[in-house]
Amino acid sequence: MTRRLLVIGGSDAGISAALRARELDPSAQVTVVVADAYANFSICGIPYHVSGDVPRWQSLAHRTAADLEAAGLTVRPSTRATAIDVPGRCVAVTGPDGGTELLPYDELVVGTGARPALPAITGLADLGPADGVHLLHTIDDTHALVAGLQERRVRSALVVGAGYIGVEMAEALVARGIATTVAQRPAEVLTTVDPGLGALVRAEMAAHGVEVLTGTGVTGLTRTADGRIAATAGGGGLDRSFDLVLVASGVRPDVDLLVDAGARTGAGGAVVVDETMATGLPHVRAAGDCVVTHHRLLGTTYLPLGTTAHKQGRVAGANAVGGDARFAGSVGTQVVKVFGLVAARTGLLAHEAVAAGFRPVTTETLVDDHKAYYPGARPITIRITADAGTGRLLGAQLVGRLGSEVAKRADVYATALFHGMTVEGMADLDLTYTPPLGSPWDAVQMAAQAWTREHRPAPTTRSTPADPAARPRRTP
Amino acid sequence: MTRRLLVIGGSDAGISAALRARELDPSAQVTVVVADAYANFSICGIPYHVSGDVPRWQSLAHRTAADLEAAGLTVRPSTRATAIDVPGRCVAVTGPDGGTELLPYDELVVGTGARPALPAITGLADLGPADGVHLLHTIDDTHALVAGLQERRVRSALVVGAGYIGVEMAEALVARGIATTVAQRPAEVLTTVDPGLGALVRAEMAAHGVEVLTGTGVTGLTRTADGRIAATAGGGGLDRSFDLVLVASGVRPDVDLLVDAGARTGAGGAVVVDETMATGLPHVRAAGDCVVTHHRLLGTTYLPLGTTAHKQGRVAGANAVGGDARFAGSVGTQVVKVFGLVAARTGLLAHEAVAAGFRPVTTETLVDDHKAYYPGARPITIRITADAGTGRLLGAQLVGRLGSEVAKRADVYATALFHGMTVEGMADLDLTYTPPLGSPWDAVQMAAQAWTREHRPAPTTRSTPADPAARPRRTP
Repeated sequence: MTRRLLVIGGSDAGISAALRARELDPSAQVTVVVADAYANFSICGIPYHVSGDVPRWQSLAHRTAADLEAAGLTVRPSTRATAIDVPGRCVAVTGPDGGTELLPYDELVVGTGARPALPAITGLADLGPADGVHLLHTIDDTHALVAGLQERRVRSALVVGAGYIGVEMAEALVARGIATTVAQRPAEVLTTVDPGLGALVRAEMAAHGVEVLTGTGVTGLTRTADGRIAATAGGGGLDRSFDLVLVASGVRPDVDLLVDAGARTGAGGAVVVDETMATGLPHVRAAGDCVVTHHRLLGTTYLPLGTTAHKQGRVAGANAVGGDARFAGSVGTQVVKVFGLVAARTGLLAHEAVAAGFRPVTTETLVDDHKAYYPGARPITIRITADAGTGRLLGAQLVGRLGSEVAKRADVYATALFHGMTVEGMADLDLTYTPPLGSPWDAVQMAAQAWTREHRPAPTTRSTPADPAARPRRTP
Repeated sequence: MTRRLLVIGGSDAGISAALRARELDPSAQVTVVVADAYANFSICGIPYHVSGDVPRWQSLAHRTAADLEAAGLTVRPSTRATAIDVPGRCVAVTGPDGGTELLPYDELVVGTGARPALPAITGLADLGPADGVHLLHTIDDTHALVAGLQERRVRSALVVGAGYIGVEMAEALVARGIATTVAQRPAEVLTTVDPGLGALVRAEMAAHGVEVLTGTGVTGLTRTADGRIAATAGGGGLDRSFDLVLVASGVRPDVDLLVDAGARTGAGGAVVVDETMATGLPHVRAAGDCVVTHHRLLGTTYLPLGTTAHKQGRVAGANAVGGDARFAGSVGTQVVKVFGLVAARTGLLAHEAVAAGFRPVTTETLVDDHKAYYPGARPITIRITADAGTGRLLGAQLVGRLGSEVAKRADVYATALFHGMTVEGMADLDLTYTPPLGSPWDAVQMAAQAWTREHRPAPTTRSTPADPAARPRRTP
């Protein structure tokens, strides 16, 4: 029996589902409806097109339309799903010409993703790209931003928000020679890591000319008489005008379609799914930024990430063609490059671990990326969080220079977390060593050993540093 | 009760044992007898001193004498252990002045390490540093080599052997402006990886001016009338003279002391120990290059590596002061930098896996280190070996450019191997992603997925490439 699989959404989750379904069942008829004209684009790559690193926006496609067609997918671009008829197993769509249509399915996968969260800023709702005020979530948003940068003579820009997109876009704007200010309400940039590590990122931004205003929640935007945008902040920390404003304040799950069809929402307002990506609505699965995230340490949470969307989509696609796949769960692994720094984390921060019922304690260590005697050794700041009772590794945060294998070191921790390792057990891992690239105990192990020395003192001991290359850091 | 711990050997295993014992029991009296004057030096760093990257040989010390003293160790340099009296619990030593002494102990840890294997080369036994023929295992050897390079006008050098030390030393000699030839019997360099990957390393060496002669076992060395060294090879592939010859043909365990005391030898002629590093002789533990290696996939083997010596030493030291530590086992993780390339492996090659009773099949994939659209993406060649029946990951080999996080990617595989993961399970790992540093499925996962597509086709499928960035490689 030929299955008709309908996929709503052409980003990571939807395309992953569609490809996986075809891979497992080449007889499946797989149709993907895509709201815009850009199926399977790398949203994470947008800052690098704006910066000029990726000159052609077309390069941001993970796969071309021809690739998708060759994989057996029928892609319907510029087609917006407006309603799901669950009992009737069909989806109402509006096509590029405005005409409506009902698309029948045997199985449905919904990957509607997320949309930008709009912070409470007076005036924001009335301003748009024509005024020099931008959001950035889609390729159309990107075109509008790049056009705005080209058409106006943008010499100054304000980025509202200092999460991943905010700091990446600050770098992109600086690369274009624009005087760039980043303003955000929290006291430190990148709240995905502890403030001490965020401070390292902020210093790197400042060193590259970004004006970083923390504790500065933008409260109002107004168009000035000369066509610029005046920004005000609570507490008065900002009262200036800019040629361009980019609001990058995170995302909210785009759940209307599924909620209207009867789906439940949970963590973060996202649609509840189980580990098979089932929504509870018959024959309807969902994946990606529109659904909750199963987390191996937290249970169910909301943590929208491209990596997770790929995995969830793959699971949904497999199950849509009769598979028995389960999403194994996130451990919250994330990384960002900020100028010459790399900041990565996996697992939990201490306050998240407390909320999940653990007793976290954290040790911060400075460890060289390779033997200090070999030229070019550079310190990586590593924070290890683990449970005081069981010694179970709960999280790791790393900040180091680009080129010192920070990201894949985070992945070693991520793999350890996946397997529920203790911090002490990290010493058992058999990791690579050559003086230009590591140490006999790799940096990831030295940081773990520092945690153990601080929090699990041996019964009779005063602790002796195991390696002088691991230096306890005086936390600022 | 104060324990007297005696450690024989001042390299990785011995010092690790001594430090760990003091860390766990600061009341322990710990004495380390060191045959030469160089306790706790990084043998792996020698090539980088010879190359000039590390100008001062003293920098190769992991810790200084003052560090070791501060950690509470009594180090006796230039003191050679000549016999162990097991029932009497004492060790006969010869000190720097030639005098002999009996050192009593409560617990003994032996870390005598390894010494260079001498290949069957006619004339080798009669030649030495004064003739321009060198071995390279100790700091004294290093001094002799560096002195030889400085005093003679060395313009050409022959390196016998193309294992890790051979290829690293070839690079070091080239860095000194010396015309360098590497000759070895096997058909490809670096037999620790499959020949197809060894060929990439050989090409990199050739591109940097090293003459690489494979299938060329050196059979004779003779001093010529003008003070050079003539080398001949079986099959006639070599009949030339060189200013300097370095023999780098691997190592053999240095077991005489333990064998004379009654210890048994096993794999590779190394002393048999259990996972607690006990030798079977009462109160005598041993660790490092002189003992067998417990391997999580192979059982007991001989695989002398600095990383393993550190771990085994740490276990021996803990147990010597009443601990209950066990060596968790190697997975054979190794890495080498060769000019601008990094070659890493973990786990087993196919032929090793066959010998261990697995049914290995291997897939080679070329995968970019990060998204191709971001500048600087470079392919990593990854070979995944796994069991055809169970899908269990058995090994991974990676060759890529320096700077593309090859070493720590190998460590992700190493951590997966440690936990007995299947290749398919690698897709569940939550790894870092940002376009400048990775992909939504990291290279390690794309290579794993390529293995699965080749060897575990889904029941109904022709396989569809999951990501165009993963390109099956035509093996040369």
